[in-house]
Amino acid sequence: MTVAGGRSMVTDQELELVEEGLKKAVASDVRRLAEASQHIICAGGKRIRPKVVLLSYKAAGGKDIRQAVPLAVAVELLHTASLIHDDINDHSSMRRGQATVNARWGDSLALLTGDFVFIKLLGLMPALDPRLIQVLAGACRDLVEGEVLQFLSLGDTRMDQETYLTIVRKKTASLFSACAELGGVRAGAGEREVAALKEYGLNLGMAFQIRDDTLDLVGHREELGKPVGSDLEQGKMSLATLFALRSSDRAGEVLFASGPGRRARARHAAQAIELLRDSRAPEYAMQKAKEYSEKGKEALSVLAGSEARAALFRLADVVLARDR
Amino acid sequence: MTVAGGRSMVTDQELELVEEGLKKAVASDVRRLAEASQHIICAGGKRIRPKVVLLSYKAAGGKDIRQAVPLAVAVELLHTASLIHDDINDHSSMRRGQATVNARWGDSLALLTGDFVFIKLLGLMPALDPRLIQVLAGACRDLVEGEVLQFLSLGDTRMDQETYLTIVRKKTASLFSACAELGGVRAGAGEREVAALKEYGLNLGMAFQIRDDTLDLVGHREELGKPVGSDLEQGKMSLATLFALRSSDRAGEVLFASGPGRRARARHAAQAIELLRDSRAPEYAMQKAKEYSEKGKEALSVLAGSEARAALFRLADVVLARDR
Repeated sequence: MTVAGGRSMVTDQELELVEEGLKKAVASDVRRLAEASQHIICAGGKRIRPKVVLLSYKAAGGKDIRQAVPLAVAVELLHTASLIHDDINDHSSMRRGQATVNARWGDSLALLTGDFVFIKLLGLMPALDPRLIQVLAGACRDLVEGEVLQFLSLGDTRMDQETYLTIVRKKTASLFSACAELGGVRAGAGEREVAALKEYGLNLGMAFQIRDDTLDLVGHREELGKPVGSDLEQGKMSLATLFALRSSDRAGEVLFASGPGRRARARHAAQAIELLRDSRAPEYAMQKAKEYSEKGKEALSVLAGSEARAALFRLADVVLARDR
Repeated sequence: MTVAGGRSMVTDQELELVEEGLKKAVASDVRRLAEASQHIICAGGKRIRPKVVLLSYKAAGGKDIRQAVPLAVAVELLHTASLIHDDINDHSSMRRGQATVNARWGDSLALLTGDFVFIKLLGLMPALDPRLIQVLAGACRDLVEGEVLQFLSLGDTRMDQETYLTIVRKKTASLFSACAELGGVRAGAGEREVAALKEYGLNLGMAFQIRDDTLDLVGHREELGKPVGSDLEQGKMSLATLFALRSSDRAGEVLFASGPGRRARARHAAQAIELLRDSRAPEYAMQKAKEYSEKGKEALSVLAGSEARAALFRLADVVLARDR
């Protein structure tokens, strides 16, 4: 597996170290807990956050990848734990093309499994420098605060774009920024390089999430690994929906006034997606995502040229083009 | 407030430092999150875990209490987070005499609030020695594993006593043991003293939880701050119920076969509690709790005599006598 074709700077062997670390981290004598944790961890996922850690470490001059692996494991554990809990709150039944933990084992066990994966992060801390722990702690706080802000604004069709961007920054971009920072700090980079990596990560995360939210509206079920329009159904705002709401008086009604029953919802989703496409809202959102991606690439100019820097550069394109 | 009368070695000022630390730890720009976290944290509770940290620190020769306060805050955060999530899974509406977070703000926000309080633990880590972090990480893992084991065995009337004791050890006693260990390690105590404190904490925690489970059956609503028989209704086993199940053929039927409706449940609870009292099951459970308490006290003999050691000694009596 490579990040973006043959010239990737993250090798299969390096990613395998991350996979091993993840599996080891969620080991437990309690069979059901190990099983439920591994169910979601082994289902794969893009591992984009670990890749940002490893590439940033290399781009900042790090020579021994094993120094960065525990950090890559930590960020993926945090991400995975938050997915498990998100799926409970969203009543989601599909994730990465398979049943969610809550769908398979029920909400109570899913709640505890998420706690377990969160808590396993702590087990990695004793080996880490205090500054690295501080970075992770800040990313954790932002992530949960972002989730809460999103939850509190469900169905808020009057949300302004700035509020949406704050939510994206907290719930997603902050962790991406932390990934790049962790790699840089672990490699012993100077403050200027670390700041550049943080800036890169933040913008990459913004682009990633805006693209992800847009895909929910215009992607395909097979590619997404979950139903199209899930966010819309839950009243989650996105840049595209906010744009459509501003550009059409009947948008609010069509987007968020689903009738009862599966057929009504399916008909409604089709209408809503048609309206979004007519308003060219997805194009607007993707343009914004592209701007963030470009800004992220620019930040990298501070770093010395290297194959890893080139891979981070390409990654900023990949997050725009990815299908799922 | 004192641990056990006038000669307590934990002063009001010292406990106030813990309260301040807790409030500071759950501060957030997201008003609802700060509000929900403070709702449960400021509702009080016995703060028994922080007290064990502070007393163990002093009993091990620690001189500057401010060194132990962040550890006391950390263990209470962990405990509080797990209560918030427990109340979701148990569908509890009352805790410490007031509405639970889930009852007041709904399950979704309660889930995120619990995550937030868990995660705030990480913010305290950068200042800690790796060994202390390791102790906390182990306690966290045990706590969640214990909760899962308990969840998986709900309604299992064939559970043996050993399994029940394993659950109590993991979900409660392990954290008590960690509290005492953290205090000892932070004070720079020798390995023999630290081992004695761990042993004390473990036994104190066993006594505490067995007493707590028994109170659920024979306490009073006003003292408990929640309905009597909640655990029974949820199918949670206790030493008393296991004893009653072994000593009477009709116990299983009476204890765990509640009819539908509030009246039927109330009648059933009254029957079940009568049966438990007739079987002298609460006395059996309390005798076991007392044995753990005594074993905890014995462990303290390794430590040099001090007022703090005497206070730990008294605490082992207080956990048996407490009403809530």
